[in-house]
Amino acid sequence: MDIIKVSANSRTAAVAGAIAGVMREHRHAEVQAIGAGAVNQAVKALVLARGYLEADGIPIFCVPEFVDVEIDGKVRTAVKLIVDPAPETK
Amino acid sequence: MDIIKVSANSRTAAVAGAIAGVMREHRHAEVQAIGAGAVNQAVKALVLARGYLEADGIPIFCVPEFVDVEIDGKVRTAVKLIVDPAPETK
Repeated sequence: MDIIKVSANSRTAAVAGAIAGVMREHRHAEVQAIGAGAVNQAVKALVLARGYLEADGIPIFCVPEFVDVEIDGKVRTAVKLIVDPAPETK
Repeated sequence: MDIIKVSANSRTAAVAGAIAGVMREHRHAEVQAIGAGAVNQAVKALVLARGYLEADGIPIFCVPEFVDVEIDGKVRTAVKLIVDPAPETK
């Protein structure tokens, strides 16, 4: 399963659609963003995706973590948002 | 319970401490941010708070949503991160 990589220029609706698609297929998604603009787009996409998926009966939640990624030989800290289905009781 | 308001200039460690404190006391926290810089700080603080709280045996997850807030008479869209304890099985 591919990580959904988000940049500051990513369209939120496109990212939200990608998150929803991966969640429908795998019941798990990982969204990675580097920098404030990208993190903001990722979170906004997650809000939209949550709406799409709730309509499908798949409520979701996320857990954020830091990951080091190497880009052009430099190590940068990315934010990874791990998305999973919410428990039945929520 | 007060909403934890985060700005682009908020220190992540201070916000993380606030989230951890509210979670320890109320087992629920709400973090509000307006704008990319603020959302980024909020998410980074949540990663740190997750570390603090896991050490206390309180794993957390978050659900993002949009909320309209009025500031100086203008309506702006904020991102609210709702933080709750993760289910026992996670």
